[in-house]
Amino acid sequence: MAENIFNGVNVDALVQTIEAVKKDPQIGEFKFRVRNTWQDGTLNRATVKGFYGAKEEHPDRAGRLEYDIDEPPVLMGNDRGPNPVEYLLVGLSGCVTTSLVAHAAARGIKLNSVASELEGDIDLRGFMDIDPNVPVGYKEIRITFAIDADATRDQIEELAEFAKNHSPVAGTIMNATPVTVKVKKA
Amino acid sequence: MAENIFNGVNVDALVQTIEAVKKDPQIGEFKFRVRNTWQDGTLNRATVKGFYGAKEEHPDRAGRLEYDIDEPPVLMGNDRGPNPVEYLLVGLSGCVTTSLVAHAAARGIKLNSVASELEGDIDLRGFMDIDPNVPVGYKEIRITFAIDADATRDQIEELAEFAKNHSPVAGTIMNATPVTVKVKKA
Repeated sequence: MAENIFNGVNVDALVQTIEAVKKDPQIGEFKFRVRNTWQDGTLNRATVKGFYGAKEEHPDRAGRLEYDIDEPPVLMGNDRGPNPVEYLLVGLSGCVTTSLVAHAAARGIKLNSVASELEGDIDLRGFMDIDPNVPVGYKEIRITFAIDADATRDQIEELAEFAKNHSPVAGTIMNATPVTVKVKKA
Repeated sequence: MAENIFNGVNVDALVQTIEAVKKDPQIGEFKFRVRNTWQDGTLNRATVKGFYGAKEEHPDRAGRLEYDIDEPPVLMGNDRGPNPVEYLLVGLSGCVTTSLVAHAAARGIKLNSVASELEGDIDLRGFMDIDPNVPVGYKEIRITFAIDADATRDQIEELAEFAKNHSPVAGTIMNATPVTVKVKKA
């Protein structure tokens, strides 16, 4: 029997994975990891390598693994890469898109094209410790989708909202997610 | 007079910028942006381009601007790039590092090296809509720093915690930050 591929997603494998996680939630426990090394000033470099999931370590990844992070000149950098809050939007854009594609596939909604624009507002008085009442992070992030799909406008709007509400990056941002820091003994 | 460069950061420029934002908070209002285009299945591509800040548009950026986002095979992708939640950690790693470097410079603490490892836990039952009580995003993110600096261990630990609490990406994650979605009329 041919594989059931929809929106480029293997729907049979998706359904099987969901059933497996329902039976054994440990299969769905993942740990993702990144390393970072400071270079100089506002330049640092992040490396994506292994992760844990489906009950085993996955030590190797294909493709490019290193990402340079810098600031533009107006923020005292040399523009050798996007800045940290732009990488956050890169991750969010990918997450809401994949969430939308996967949940559309599960519902049998065929997508022809999906594009999005994201914009977030930051008030630097938070980072600069000028005013403790100003949020340090983004005040708000707006996602605007342009979607061509074999579905009604109401279905598409409901799908976009559902995709956001089931996107792990969006969930991390919309919830108060704990971030802990510790310093290794030298 | 020579410029006052500390940890690779132009401290005179940093202090001038902070003073300028104190006098005119509009200078500190920034908008960052990303575009994303779905390719196929779990593959999509984000583009970083212009931003708004210091009261003007900055339409152009140097360097590489496109980022491929995919999933590993165990999550039904082809590993053509890091996944969305890994890009979130890339941004967080850069943000806490730059926050630490800048605030150390402002305090006159000389850094010799800064490295970090980040790890976050995700339970896929949230994304898969299996259990509404499971968070959709990361349950927790842990940052472990290795820092060599001309400072006491207490100073370094306090600096690391301060850096996290003044990092815009960490702030976006630790606060409940609103994310809105809308669909453009076709």
